[in-house]
Amino acid sequence: MEKKITRKENYLYQSLLAYQKSDYYPFHMPGHKRNIEKLPNWNPYGMDITEIDGFDNLHDAKGILLESMKRAADFRGAEESFYLVNGTTCGILAGIAACCNCGDEILAGRNCHKAVYHGISTLGLVPRYIYPQSYQDFHINCGYLSENIRKMLTTFKNIKLVVLTSPTYEGVVSDIETIAKIVHNHGIPLMVDQAHGAHFGMHEDFPISALECGADIVVESVHKTLPSYTQTALLHVQGNIVKRRNLRKYLGIYQTSSPSYIMMSGIEWCQKYCASKEGKKAFDIYIKELSELREQFTQFRFVRLFQPQKDVAGCKNYDIGKLVFGVSDNLMSGQELYNRLLKKYHLQLEMASLHYVIAMTSVMDKKEGFIRLIKALKEIDEQLKVLYKEEKAEHSDEKKHKEYAVIEFPIKNKQICIPFKAELSKGEWIDFKETCGRISKSYLYLYPPGIPFLVPGEIISEEVIKFTEECKLAGLEIKGMDKEQLEVIVNE
Amino acid sequence: MEKKITRKENYLYQSLLAYQKSDYYPFHMPGHKRNIEKLPNWNPYGMDITEIDGFDNLHDAKGILLESMKRAADFRGAEESFYLVNGTTCGILAGIAACCNCGDEILAGRNCHKAVYHGISTLGLVPRYIYPQSYQDFHINCGYLSENIRKMLTTFKNIKLVVLTSPTYEGVVSDIETIAKIVHNHGIPLMVDQAHGAHFGMHEDFPISALECGADIVVESVHKTLPSYTQTALLHVQGNIVKRRNLRKYLGIYQTSSPSYIMMSGIEWCQKYCASKEGKKAFDIYIKELSELREQFTQFRFVRLFQPQKDVAGCKNYDIGKLVFGVSDNLMSGQELYNRLLKKYHLQLEMASLHYVIAMTSVMDKKEGFIRLIKALKEIDEQLKVLYKEEKAEHSDEKKHKEYAVIEFPIKNKQICIPFKAELSKGEWIDFKETCGRISKSYLYLYPPGIPFLVPGEIISEEVIKFTEECKLAGLEIKGMDKEQLEVIVNE
Repeated sequence: MEKKITRKENYLYQSLLAYQKSDYYPFHMPGHKRNIEKLPNWNPYGMDITEIDGFDNLHDAKGILLESMKRAADFRGAEESFYLVNGTTCGILAGIAACCNCGDEILAGRNCHKAVYHGISTLGLVPRYIYPQSYQDFHINCGYLSENIRKMLTTFKNIKLVVLTSPTYEGVVSDIETIAKIVHNHGIPLMVDQAHGAHFGMHEDFPISALECGADIVVESVHKTLPSYTQTALLHVQGNIVKRRNLRKYLGIYQTSSPSYIMMSGIEWCQKYCASKEGKKAFDIYIKELSELREQFTQFRFVRLFQPQKDVAGCKNYDIGKLVFGVSDNLMSGQELYNRLLKKYHLQLEMASLHYVIAMTSVMDKKEGFIRLIKALKEIDEQLKVLYKEEKAEHSDEKKHKEYAVIEFPIKNKQICIPFKAELSKGEWIDFKETCGRISKSYLYLYPPGIPFLVPGEIISEEVIKFTEECKLAGLEIKGMDKEQLEVIVNE
Repeated sequence: MEKKITRKENYLYQSLLAYQKSDYYPFHMPGHKRNIEKLPNWNPYGMDITEIDGFDNLHDAKGILLESMKRAADFRGAEESFYLVNGTTCGILAGIAACCNCGDEILAGRNCHKAVYHGISTLGLVPRYIYPQSYQDFHINCGYLSENIRKMLTTFKNIKLVVLTSPTYEGVVSDIETIAKIVHNHGIPLMVDQAHGAHFGMHEDFPISALECGADIVVESVHKTLPSYTQTALLHVQGNIVKRRNLRKYLGIYQTSSPSYIMMSGIEWCQKYCASKEGKKAFDIYIKELSELREQFTQFRFVRLFQPQKDVAGCKNYDIGKLVFGVSDNLMSGQELYNRLLKKYHLQLEMASLHYVIAMTSVMDKKEGFIRLIKALKEIDEQLKVLYKEEKAEHSDEKKHKEYAVIEFPIKNKQICIPFKAELSKGEWIDFKETCGRISKSYLYLYPPGIPFLVPGEIISEEVIKFTEECKLAGLEIKGMDKEQLEVIVNE
């Protein structure tokens, strides 16, 4: 993997084949975890056709695809379900477009994925934001307070759609049931980005799906937490508020007119597996091993597992499949922990933030992976004990390790104009350090998770600049800049 | 394949596995033709990862993906190339969005794919149309006259982008070189939808690529005519007119934030294969067999191969890889011929229109397939001879076989408002037969090829209704209606 290879040899597919044979263990998406013993061994080319006779058309399904999607709907408890071959991304774009027209107001969680912002921007919507609560301990975005949503809908009476993220990337689930009732009282639909919750409801120890809580549209990335291919997702719909024909129209716009039968088969197999006896048994084993794994974290002195209290900071429930952990006493940043696990132990985690890391688990995980993780963390925890003693012994107030600034995320930026208008305005690319006080024409976000902390039309504050610099310092990757430049609106 | 199966058993993936073992021969996309002996035998799950360390990020490529795309650019002669995992569809949407703002005028071929119309509609553009010439013999859309484009650009001075389809679905190539010069004289970019020409330039007997002719943006479906997975495509860009940062931004909007490494590997393998010695040799053999195959058509009395004369009806060149053929003397419609080849001979063609069918070939075709096609057509031709004699013997003026109306396609509809405005207008779904004279809020198109003959904002004329009914009568599938209803704008 890490050997120096010349350009000519460095083909992606060859690297992937080599990586497959390496000992790197995946604590990241996709949820199938490359556990090929348990997965179908299909020749992808052999199954790859187009809309020929007998194989239906995703964009106007009437036959085998409709049946397949109906089974998915039955299984997930939806009235209608759609296979998505362009990820949750296209489901979010289509859902927003189906419910809103140019100029409409939309209430969106400020911690939504960039796809929501792209919908708002390209469709010319007026965004109103609802901010998630913060779980102070880990500086983690938690849930939405239903009370805040009620207030927003009372203040802004023309809102046409509410879009929320639940669970968050870190696994926090909001009280969608109460929120759905509030939203429906205003006669408008609720769309939940349940990208990280495709496994919800598949075991009683997991939260229930937003669909069961009454959301009108629920989009979920089957590839994230279930055994399906990257880029595959499902959109579910129920109730009479969302115009189904509109939804179908926009799904036809934001998805290729040549959808992959490989991808669609992957979604179908995943649903069939999860609903099967074998799948149910696998979920039982997974939950058991996961609980044991989480229990193991109690032995550590410095490595701490995030386990939010219910009904605190808008946290209605929590996905135990997510392992969110960090190191206390500022002994190690999230990125440092991530790097250590990757380089020394060949454990590839999903993401690192300033204060913590995320390891994703799924029903396809191997016990071996869990054992390796705990063993690695035990060693790291021991080393931290030594480090901590040394620091104390030095009797110094100055810590060896940098203390990262705590900036509440998402930052509450001042919006000067809506994203759509900002995109239409004349822009110029200038050095990022010169942008303070200017109106942004760009997004800035950490990837993963892809939640913008700066949106076109917003003022670039000192806080934004400080946050960006802190992230960079910690080795996190900021997206949105190009060669240290950012596009801002030209001052007239 | 055709045995009656109960709903529970009728899984898509199982049907695909069964189909793989059947004797149906693919004269359709994808271009890999499921010729698994010549294709990599990858376990798709084993290669399916996400943006982990060392594997780059499609939406901000700096490492292995950038290198891979650079090789594709070098091979195709582009300055920059992008892998598309949401088909040519997303490339077209991104290309239009990168060059046009809301309210801008765009010049589009009226025979463009619906993705172009979706771009026009969702982005709020003002469409001006250029109509292709018609090749009378087969009632086939041919090329664009450069002179007409010059006139349009002189009349409408605010056009910001020209989007054309070349080759057409039937393989007709326009004079992009001359057109590019005219477009550039007006200081605006030319985007060519070369979806069906990803193999152009790979052998001297194929037309050259629109990129070589000077187009600024060229989008091509590698899955259509080359050995790559369905849903994969490439976007190429050159020159200084198109803002690259804009283009990247919109590619990031219209493609999933979780692009599939299976799909990207498929594009890469395809490019590597085509550039290899083995690939070049395979193209030589393919061209030889293709020429022999085309030659065989001369023996038929009624089955006629479309082979347009160059420099007639805007046809600059022609893709011999496309087998477009029909039956003369109205003895058989395109759909009837298609059905006969499918049901009796298990030859699955790409599409049927009123007057002809399309069989797609590629470098992955087997000689066996070509032999089966000619053998089948020989039999059909013989049967047609008998039929023709019978008809003549009856001394009847009334033909046994229905003569399908010839309506020039695309129909020149009257546009009352731009699609964007039509989409914003209040709509109602009414029975199609009641729609004459109303303003459409829907698209109507045949799929394939997915070229709308009715666009939101256009008047539904008698011609549109007649054409629709003719198509239905011939067994062609019209998309855009729902339960025989169409959405029209409510009369105020």
